[in-house]
Amino acid sequence: MRFCSNCGAPVELRVPAGDNLPRHVCPACETIHYQNPKMVIGCIAEWEDRILLCRRAIEPRHGLWTLPAGFMENGETVAQAALRETLEEANARVELAAMYSVLSVPHVNQVHIFYRGRLLDLGFGPGEESLEVALFAEADVPWKELAFRTISTTLRHYYGDRKAGAYGFHTGEILPAR
Amino acid sequence: MRFCSNCGAPVELRVPAGDNLPRHVCPACETIHYQNPKMVIGCIAEWEDRILLCRRAIEPRHGLWTLPAGFMENGETVAQAALRETLEEANARVELAAMYSVLSVPHVNQVHIFYRGRLLDLGFGPGEESLEVALFAEADVPWKELAFRTISTTLRHYYGDRKAGAYGFHTGEILPAR
Repeated sequence: MRFCSNCGAPVELRVPAGDNLPRHVCPACETIHYQNPKMVIGCIAEWEDRILLCRRAIEPRHGLWTLPAGFMENGETVAQAALRETLEEANARVELAAMYSVLSVPHVNQVHIFYRGRLLDLGFGPGEESLEVALFAEADVPWKELAFRTISTTLRHYYGDRKAGAYGFHTGEILPAR
Repeated sequence: MRFCSNCGAPVELRVPAGDNLPRHVCPACETIHYQNPKMVIGCIAEWEDRILLCRRAIEPRHGLWTLPAGFMENGETVAQAALRETLEEANARVELAAMYSVLSVPHVNQVHIFYRGRLLDLGFGPGEESLEVALFAEADVPWKELAFRTISTTLRHYYGDRKAGAYGFHTGEILPAR
């Protein structure tokens, strides 16, 4: 951020009165421009013993596999974001079950949230941001070609819970890769 | 948003190619300025059968009671935000238990997340944004003077669960007041 989005003047980076972190502050109109983490919302869409994965048609991680997910928009709920992203990325309609994982990714200022959901029909297919969309049994999950660690972490919990016979709710954090 | 934070030119509101929502787009440098929901993170800090509430010293809802909570910052995890806000608003140190509630508030573009936590000592007191901080038994909770509906919703779940003998995990949404 270099200019004030309110008045167009160049901003300064300084700690406002009563605050303890540097912010982009406009010396002309005094607007403080806060920057906060973004939420990425997605879904584990289940069909019998298989789940839906999408191969990414966009950067980052073009060509790698992901759960349908994307940035939450203003004006929607977390559940609505999960339904919308599943529809946009995979043309897939789901009935949501419980929220399944909440994973902080502090080094990229994101929180990733996944629901479980039941796929309502097999009429899915790649949206604009996917190269292909397919159902995978556990033995066929392309673990080495998953796009993000929040995906692999969520799926490890998922198959662990399934083996144990009950789905839980999982929170955690993803640290920078060493 | 009226000006581009990257180059200072006036922005336009239009639907970018490949998108389906209007965004603030800079016609000069082509930056697309996305706006996304913000997370508010807080804690139910428990001491025996009482919980910690803070009376707000700031707007909105000056003078009303809240759980310690505030906007999540870049670079931190959800759990770190809960610890930080509890310390900043109530000078209170807690050991976090499980994540307790995730509540979407779509009409203000927010998601509120609360942990349960165990207060480690009684050396709490008002931070800069609180008028006073106190422990409340269930019978003394000022239900009519709570600052936000995410607070009352979370506390209703909390006392319901406590009566039932087991704390769950709760998701939901807060619709605009009629």
